[in-house]
Amino acid sequence: MPPTAHAVVLLSGGLDSATALALAREQGFACHALSLDYGQRHDAELSAARRLAAHLGAVEHKVVHVGLDAFGGSALTDAHIAVPEAQGAGIPVTYVPARNTILLALALGWAEVLGARDLFIGVNAVDYSGYPDCRPAFIQAFQDLARVATKAGVEGAGFQIHAPLLHMSKAEIVRAGHRLGLDYGLTVSCYQADPEGRACGRCDACRLRAQGFAEAGLPDPTRYR
Amino acid sequence: MPPTAHAVVLLSGGLDSATALALAREQGFACHALSLDYGQRHDAELSAARRLAAHLGAVEHKVVHVGLDAFGGSALTDAHIAVPEAQGAGIPVTYVPARNTILLALALGWAEVLGARDLFIGVNAVDYSGYPDCRPAFIQAFQDLARVATKAGVEGAGFQIHAPLLHMSKAEIVRAGHRLGLDYGLTVSCYQADPEGRACGRCDACRLRAQGFAEAGLPDPTRYR
Repeated sequence: MPPTAHAVVLLSGGLDSATALALAREQGFACHALSLDYGQRHDAELSAARRLAAHLGAVEHKVVHVGLDAFGGSALTDAHIAVPEAQGAGIPVTYVPARNTILLALALGWAEVLGARDLFIGVNAVDYSGYPDCRPAFIQAFQDLARVATKAGVEGAGFQIHAPLLHMSKAEIVRAGHRLGLDYGLTVSCYQADPEGRACGRCDACRLRAQGFAEAGLPDPTRYR
Repeated sequence: MPPTAHAVVLLSGGLDSATALALAREQGFACHALSLDYGQRHDAELSAARRLAAHLGAVEHKVVHVGLDAFGGSALTDAHIAVPEAQGAGIPVTYVPARNTILLALALGWAEVLGARDLFIGVNAVDYSGYPDCRPAFIQAFQDLARVATKAGVEGAGFQIHAPLLHMSKAEIVRAGHRLGLDYGLTVSCYQADPEGRACGRCDACRLRAQGFAEAGLPDPTRYR
């Protein structure tokens, strides 16, 4: 890899994507972090993404608004959504239909502008095996698409879609970030974090995250409310 | 096809996508028209899309905002952009990087919400042969992606990406729409239409369009300024 290779890194503000960014940096990429504002997203996540981009040495960070709320509330009724276990009518903000396809499509657009040929996404097949777009087959299919969808793909060596967490357990992810000095206290995983980013401690995302730190034998820096 | 099959139809407000919508309706689909507001788009095109959705019997029409302007101005410098031939610093509003990948990704998201399994896009390999994402290989790759990216794709018969204009000349497109009663006076193709949607008559899009009507031997209802 040339020393100045650039990568677009999808950064939600959560634990997984922050680790993906840390790993991309470790590989020597100049990282352009990309976050999406879905129109229904917690500000706490986007604030976390901004802090993480700086903390992890991204060369820049963009937040792109995508009005997916226009497609209506059926994310709530879709069978493969991880619904929060907690009380109340919490919207599963971490899910949108065709989520990772849309995320990678936008990352591809930015990569085309930048001349970058590497995209990073923090998907994980272990924790979310029920999500089709978190599997190796999806990553491969998007890489195949990127090759035929763009001028750079057709004329050059194509794009590499990196999913470094794909086969890692949550404990392995936490250990990797810890080794690289990632301050997980800056990340927000909770489906229903408060405006300051403090976690509920009860939803699926909180449970998986706490379990990861416990299994890794590392202190959990999560700020609970 | 069951009588109530639903389709998501990408509708820009231009001649091609309007014809794709007319052809989708002819095939019996209940059509859900989808337009993107890129943040740099002429209001004239979105107004045209709204009128066309009604004119062509779409069951609904949504405009989704996507802040692609955040990726910066390099659409102007990208080598495979059709730059307007006319005077001035006209932005090629019809192009964005990875455009059709992003359009289809959003259409796929809406289709998932609706339970639709058919997407229509008015790409055309003849007029835009320099665009990688207007070729049959791109359409096929996206269809392959859609199968592995979504629950409906994995569990069911997948998605059908319809590109009915793919191999048609502009004259053939115009004849098809004319046969179906499409009022092309409602469409806006010009890269630099005025706020009322009136065309410049000089840019690439205007030239191709006028040529299409001429070759089809049909009156050109385009409103020029």
